[in-house]
Order: sequence, then structure tokens, then C-alpha cells
Amino acid sequence: MPGFFYPRTATGRASLIPHPPWFYSGDLLTVEYRTDPARVAELLPDPLTLAAEDPGAVALIWADWQSCAQSREELLDPVRAQYKEAFVVVRCGYQGRTYSRCVYIWVDKDFAVARGIHQGYPKKLGSIWQTRPHPFAHAAPQLAPGGRFGATLAAADRRLAETIVTLTGESEHNGFVNGHPMAHHRILPGIERAENGDTESGSRSGDAFVELIESGAAQVEAGQAWQGTVDHLALYESPTEELARLEVHEIIGAYYRQVGVEWNGGRSLQARTRPEPTR
Amino acid sequence: MPGFFYPRTATGRASLIPHPPWFYSGDLLTVEYRTDPARVAELLPDPLTLAAEDPGAVALIWADWQSCAQSREELLDPVRAQYKEAFVVVRCGYQGRTYSRCVYIWVDKDFAVARGIHQGYPKKLGSIWQTRPHPFAHAAPQLAPGGRFGATLAAADRRLAETIVTLTGESEHNGFVNGHPMAHHRILPGIERAENGDTESGSRSGDAFVELIESGAAQVEAGQAWQGTVDHLALYESPTEELARLEVHEIIGAYYRQVGVEWNGGRSLQARTRPEPTR
Amino acid sequence: MPGFFYPRTATGRASLIPHPPWFYSGDLLTVEYRTDPARVAELLPDPLTLAAEDPGAVALIWADWQSCAQSREELLDPVRAQYKEAFVVVRCGYQGRTYSRCVYIWVDKDFAVARGIHQGYPKKLGSIWQTRPHPFAHAAPQLAPGGRFGATLAAADRRLAETIVTLTGESEHNGFVNGHPMAHHRILPGIERAENGDTESGSRSGDAFVELIESGAAQVEAGQAWQGTVDHLALYESPTEELARLEVHEIIGAYYRQVGVEWNGGRSLQARTRPEPTR
Amino acid sequence: MPGFFYPRTATGRASLIPHPPWFYSGDLLTVEYRTDPARVAELLPDPLTLAAEDPGAVALIWADWQSCAQSREELLDPVRAQYKEAFVVVRCGYQGRTYSRCVYIWVDKDFAVARGIHQGYPKKLGSIWQTRPHPFAHAAPQLAPGGRFGATLAAADRRLAETIVTLTGESEHNGFVNGHPMAHHRILPGIERAENGDTESGSRSGDAFVELIESGAAQVEAGQAWQGTVDHLALYESPTEELARLEVHEIIGAYYRQVGVEWNGGRSLQARTRPEPTR
Repeated sequence: MPGFFYPRTATGRASLIPHPPWFYSGDLLTVEYRTDPARVAELLPDPLTLAAEDPGAVALIWADWQSCAQSREELLDPVRAQYKEAFVVVRCGYQGRTYSRCVYIWVDKDFAVARGIHQGYPKKLGSIWQTRPHPFAHAAPQLAPGGRFGATLAAADRRLAETIVTLTGESEHNGFVNGHPMAHHRILPGIERAENGDTESGSRSGDAFVELIESGAAQVEAGQAWQGTVDHLALYESPTEELARLEVHEIIGAYYRQVGVEWNGGRSLQARTRPEPTR
Repeated sequence: MPGFFYPRTATGRASLIPHPPWFYSGDLLTVEYRTDPARVAELLPDPLTLAAEDPGAVALIWADWQSCAQSREELLDPVRAQYKEAFVVVRCGYQGRTYSRCVYIWVDKDFAVARGIHQGYPKKLGSIWQTRPHPFAHAAPQLAPGGRFGATLAAADRRLAETIVTLTGESEHNGFVNGHPMAHHRILPGIERAENGDTESGSRSGDAFVELIESGAAQVEAGQAWQGTVDHLALYESPTEELARLEVHEIIGAYYRQVGVEWNGGRSLQARTRPEPTR
Repeated sequence: MPGFFYPRTATGRASLIPHPPWFYSGDLLTVEYRTDPARVAELLPDPLTLAAEDPGAVALIWADWQSCAQSREELLDPVRAQYKEAFVVVRCGYQGRTYSRCVYIWVDKDFAVARGIHQGYPKKLGSIWQTRPHPFAHAAPQLAPGGRFGATLAAADRRLAETIVTLTGESEHNGFVNGHPMAHHRILPGIERAENGDTESGSRSGDAFVELIESGAAQVEAGQAWQGTVDHLALYESPTEELARLEVHEIIGAYYRQVGVEWNGGRSLQARTRPEPTR
Repeated sequence: MPGFFYPRTATGRASLIPHPPWFYSGDLLTVEYRTDPARVAELLPDPLTLAAEDPGAVALIWADWQSCAQSREELLDPVRAQYKEAFVVVRCGYQGRTYSRCVYIWVDKDFAVARGIHQGYPKKLGSIWQTRPHPFAHAAPQLAPGGRFGATLAAADRRLAETIVTLTGESEHNGFVNGHPMAHHRILPGIERAENGDTESGSRSGDAFVELIESGAAQVEAGQAWQGTVDHLALYESPTEELARLEVHEIIGAYYRQVGVEWNGGRSLQARTRPEPTR
């Protein structure tokens, strides 16, 4: 049946997301810092390894996006095009290459959740806000030295993270942690009931499908990158989150950049189903 | 790595949903009607077939839930326990048995979306409202003859469906369309870029994983079922939905029932990966 | 022009709220505690005084409502009928009588904000959740000894308050802090630009209209009241809130009760405009 | 007690909105059209009259704002700074001058509702979306000929209005309907219970306070204005709205402009309380 994603119908029109390629225009606010590499290692399942250099580097990124698929029709019904996200990226090694990997991510629209399921981003819903630059300074910073930007993340009615960044000047890059192809897992837990005592471990042994995929932008255009100082950075505890476990030991830098991106699929690195998937 | 669902971490605590079993207490408002069976058939991929009897029967169900996993801790932080949903169920045949099948569903929390991905419910986000009964009638109907209940569904800022039901008396059942085990598909489209000309069909040929699963409640308790008249039932068009294509030809009935449910996994009926999933 | 509230139109249909009487059916979860009476006194403008007895008593109340006006039409379009609120009540004296007074309140619908403007409740928007009882215990407490209820309040993406209460038995009352007629102020700051140096004090001297009103339910029915223990009670800081300033010194009690209420206006105790309101 | 707006506290910090001046940076998408002047007249209470020229002209305006008060602290916690609105402006005459007047308006934050109560804008909550321009065209129009912008408005889960505009070139102005000082009413209905038979008319005779105020921007900076064609304009019915009653008879034009605004109070034109406000 046609339709890229569920629900699949005769026309494909109801699919929560259309077929890639997908296009994005948006603003990225990035804070990079170092945490205990052991906390990063905890988030890397076999066969992924810690990155060889600066293994405790973390990027905490806010993004304010407008997005669409090939028809661009979402842009004229912008409830279907605009979304915000905050996400956490670390680096890892696989077969001698360095990859970026999103370990936590929150978005505010269902189509963004669905894209994440396809791309292996572990998306939850959250409430994400970041200061916008605007040509008129009455109530907006400028993309210029002195421009101050705040960003916050909340989920389940708890604030999880917040930062304040003051731009200091142009930068030759937008950080390095999110600069590699992404290595992500796509999983579907097995539908079977866990046996006695299996509740805790069942999710591992019992996945119906696990795939390690590689993906990255098919095309990117980017404006001048800006760097800044981190005036404030806080990660807060929550009973259902582990973001704060990636403690901030040392600030690396902060960056702001406007970008245009096309995403159009990736590559399966490794897929696994259970011994007898078809019965 | 522990954790039933993504994101998987060393502790499993951040998982968007905990391991089943999952528990639900809630109220169901059901309207059953007949549509053109051809419109139902459009939504049944091979090898599912139309149900042998009354193949055009549709159930449109609103549910107002409180839910939790085994620890019950969500119940004390109810932003994590309460959610509402509206969904559409048809019946189908598979290997000589009759199944129910949810073809469209909208919920208002991310944990409910995630459970749906596990269970094969094609969940989108929506805004769902249904009248609540209450012991005091100042601003509430009673579960008794004459009690009037309204329910609405919206998504992407468009109203998609609404109904008004007046209870007439007790019923021996809560409808028949949603009364069978569910036969659902779980899918992950292939991550690879679609080749030229493949954009439309690619989603079908290129799924990385497709599984037909069977599932149903592990345990159900239900209160007295009530039947009623359908005073109003409307399905509205949307550029991204096909609910209104299941046109209302004939009302079958309306029902209200309070239930408690345990769900604890299902059974894989058929799973398929692409020829060489591991490279 | 007809219309009880704005926007006023030829038909009155667009009014954000219809004319009273207003009707409510809902569940109240109340926690009463003592704070420093000086913190209560700070919130009582002249001519209100601290209550003679137990002047530091505070009630923190969560309510889950369904509501309507005389036509009851909102009940069948329940996005217009259901709302939740959390509010803080203290007591005060005026002309020898004891009044209750809501000093902070958060709701989640605009019609509830508008009713608050009319009734003198200082309503902000928030996200409010409270555990619901349900006949089936799969994922719900019962209104019985041992029933555990949680409740939370957030605003501007910050959690402001939360509590967990375990019912211990029946109670002869639902607390005493919110048991008097309400003494509320209704204010409209003057529209004129504040003069130099007047920014801070301008709001007081410059109100266009200030009215002290008295109001209470026109009719109330209430179910069995339950009392309980407070297992958890926390008030959190926020840059835009002062709820946490009402520090919890001593728990008085916790209560749960289902009620039906009619509200139909109040009485002006004292009104003041500036010297020459008409120019 | 300090605090510009409610809730008033010892410090003033909890006030839903701080004292003016207020500052705004944002983008305005305006569609102007002509309706039946009788429909405009219905919305003008005495002593306002229809504008002498082009009395049926209506402006339907979407705005995507960032805003703050003098401290600018909201800009660094942008959940408190950003909001969107859609509003309807007509013109009217008062004492020989022409005024603009907002007859309907929807916003998506409580601080914006509160500013509206102060300024006489009849604000309800809604869901408002408008396409954003962005330097990278991957998923965004440009502020240039050919740039296409969509905008939508919904409230209570119903879509109320939508438009699509294609920019054609520069414009010397941003429309004329919203170009005058605003003439707004600020009202507080009387708190007293309406007498028998008075329910319908009570709101008129019984207002505790009615004030006609004049207000406008204290300072405005504006970028190049753009004009465009209206490819789509639709107003939809709702049981609680009368926007669609302002039927579109003839399109006047469409405009896009980025602006910075300071607002700092207005002027009372006429205020009225009931005969004996103080008892």
C-alpha cells in the first residue's frame, strides 16, 4: 500500500510524513561542553565505541525549523511546517570512523517525531524555546557581537535545560561534535510478552528489529557562523530523563548559525532480526 | 542496553515507555456505523481480507484514559498518566479468523504515541475531548437514560470528527467492531534513498521491516454498558487525513462503557525484512 | 451592545463567556498548611487585614472541572467545558467579617481566565494535572482509604508545585481556608503613560478602576469529603512567581471532595475610580 | 500594593505583566478587504460611527512577535517573550477623527491576553501560524517577488481563518485600515446578579466600568513593505465566533512588513461607572 509512513492508505495522503527528500530552513544555537567520558560510553551500545579524541565532548543544540517535503505544500499551512527541537549529540567510533550520535532529543510536533523514528533520533515531545534574531532590535538580539540568546527545554511540565549565550564574533565553524555523519539505532521491541524474570532484560534480547544506520544531510547551505560565551548553562533532574547525568565539566564553546538542509535517506550499517522472524 | 524503548541508557530510566504490562482505567464512547466496504478494503493490505459479515462496519471510538506501567508511579505524576484518544476500527480476516484493526488514531501524549508504535496503532497527535459523567449534574451528564455526551477530534488545527450521543438504556455489549483481537502492522521504511522514479512506490518495496502482529487485552473488567442514539455525527475533510473517506452510510449504534484493561504483549503473525538485512 | 464580555457584537454570540449563572461539576484536591502570617499579610491590600484566627493558614487546591452556562451547550463541545486549575487561598478580615481570598491561580482555558477577570481571581495560564479516581483500579485510585492522588502545577515550562496525598478516611469537612465568601479585587490599571519615576508606583496610584467584591457559590452540592495524609508537598521557585514565598511551615491536612456548584454573581463592597474619570 | 497587573504582591514580581513601556519585534502579514459596512457598524458601540470613507474596509492581520518590557529579561527566557496573534481591524469615527479598532483578536500566551485587557484588545486564546521568511530557501520563502506566505487561525479546535499570499513587489505602505490610533473599549461587567429578565440586557446596563481609550505605538521602525496577491482567503463558521460574518466582498490588497514597536500607554477618551460605585 502506498504511503511512506503509517497510516498507509490507498492514496498515501494520510501518511504522517511524506516520502523524503525533506527540506529544512532554520537557526541552530549550539553549546558544546565536556562531560565524564564514562557517561558518554554508557550511551553507546555495542559495537559503537567512544571517539578516540575528546570522547567526553557533548553538543547541546536548539533548533527553530521550518520544514517540508518535495511539494512544499506544508510551507503554506505552517502548523505542518514549523517545529522546534533541542537535542544532545555525542561522538562515537564504528569500524574506524568517527560518527555523531544523537542520544536525547525533544521536538514539538508529531511529524518531527515520525521523521525521528525513521532516522533513528530518539524523539520525545517537549516544549522548546529559543530567542530569535530580528532586523529590529526593540525586542530582539542581532546576529552580531553582543547579541544575547536564551534557550530552554521542558518536558512533562519540568524544565530540563536552559542556556544563555552572548555572541562575541564570527567563527570559522559551528562546533565539531555534530559535524560527522550520524550513527543511529532504529529499534522495534518484540511484541511477545516477556517471560517471568525477563522484564528487565527482555527489551534487549527480545527486539524484533534492530538496525544501525548512517545518515547525514544530502545538502547543506550555511550562513556565517557566530561564536559566543556561555553565560548560563543548566541541566535539571527529572524522574524520566537522564540528560542531567551528562554533567557539565568544562565549556567548549557556543555557536549560532542559520542553515538550509536537505535530507534524503541514509545507509544501513547493520540490521538484525530474531532467529525466526517469520512463523 | 536496558530500556524498553528509545532512548536506551545504562539505567533504562529515560525510556519513553517502560516495559509492559501496561494498565488503563478509562471511559469509552463508541459510535458504530456502516460505510462502503470498498473504502474499508482500501485500508487492508495483503494478506488481510474484508470481514465475511458486515464488512463495511466501522467503530469510531473516543477514550479518556489514565494509564501506567507496573510501578504505578505515573499515577502520582498524572501528566505522565492521563491521555485522550480517538480512533477508528474496522474488521478484517486473516487465515480464517476475524480481527479488529485500528486504521486511524490520534492521541495527545508522546508516551501514547510510543505505545502505539510498539502495538502497531498508527498514532498521530490530535486534540481529543469527550464529555465526562460526574456525580453532580450541575455541569455533567449522568450514566443513565437521557445522559448526553459530546466528543470531538481535531488535528493540525482542523476539526476532523464530532459526535453527540444520548443514552437510552443499558446494553448487553459495547459494540462488535472493536471486539476481536487486533491485527496490526508494524513498519520501518528502509533508510536508503529512493532511486529515481521510486519515490511513490519506494515505501512499499523498500520497507526495512514489516510485521503483522496480533494483540489484545490480557485482562479486562468492564462496567455496565450503555446504548444510545446518535444525535450528531460528522467527519470533516483535511488535506492530510482520510477519515472522511469512510463516509457514514448507516448508523449502527452508540455505546458508553467504563473499563479497566491490562495489556501485556501480543504475537507475531508474520515478519519480513528485505533480502539481505545485514551488510 | 449585547454580549456579557468582550468581544461585544450585535448578537452577543462571540462573547468569550456567556452571562452567569455558571455551573460546575468537578473534583477538588485540597492541601492546607501554615506559613508565616507575615507572608500572608503581604498579599492583603488595605483595607483587608489578617484573619483573627490562624492567620497563616493557606489552602493549595487543585480542581478538575466541567463547566457551562445556562444553555449547557458547552457540555456537548467539551473543549469549551473542561478545564483544570490550581489555586492558593488565604483568609482575611474586612469590616469584622472573615473572607477567603484567592491570591494565586492558574487555569488552562481562556474562558476560565475571563471568568476570573469578572470574579477577581488573578488567573494566569498553567498546566495542571491531578490524579483521577475511576471505578476500575487498573490505573486509578479509589475514593477510599489508601487511595493515592498526585497533583502538579507548571507555568512557563517550570514546575511550580506538586503534592501527593493518601486518603485515610472520611472527613466532616473539606478544609476551612476556602470556606468563606471570597473577597477579591478587580482592577484595571490606568491607560495613561506613567510619568518619570512613576513606573514603580504608578500601578497603584494610577488604577482606572479598583473594586473590592464579595462573591461565593449560589448553590453547592458536595459528596462525602475524604481526608488524607500529605506524603509530598513542594513549592518551586520561578522568576515570575511568588508561590514559593508562602513557605510550608506545618501541614494542617489534605482533603478530597466531589462537588457541583452554581455561581451567579456577587456584591460590590467598595469601588473607586480616579478623581475625574470622564474627560 | 506594587505590581502593574494581577496578582499584586509585595514585590510586584508575580504580576502577569510588568509596567509599560512594552517592546515588540515581529513580522506582520496583512490582508485587507471590503465587507458590507453594515456588518462593521454592528461592531461599533455608541458613540463610535462608521468611518466616512471606505467604511467596509477590514484588515485581517497575522503577527509573529517577540516582546519584552524594559528589563528585556523575557528575551532570554523566550517562552515569556514569543507569541503569535491574528486580529481583525476596522475603522471608525469619534469626535471627527478616524480611528482603527480591533474587533476580534486571538493570541497564544497569557501575558498577551493581559496586555490586551489593559489596551482594550478583546483577546481570546487561539492557535496561530504564519510562514516565516528565512535566508535559506530550502523550506522558506524570501521577502522578494514570488515569496509565498500562508497563515492560519484556529480556536477551540476549529479552523477560523486562513490565507495564502504571494509577494509581487515593494509597496509604499502596509495597508491603511490599521494605520490610525486605536479606539478601544475596556469593560468590567458588574458583579451583581442579573435580575429576572435582565440576563440578556444586563451586560449593557450593568457594566461596573466602561472606558473608551485611545492608544497607539509610542515609536515604530519598519522595514521595506511588500505587497502581494491574495491566492486564498477563507473565514470559517464557529458556534462561538462571528469572524465569518465579516464576509469578504472584495480584496483590497495584501502586505508583509517587519517592524519594531514600542508601546507606552494611551489616553482615556471617556469613562463611565454606574451611578453609585461605592457603597
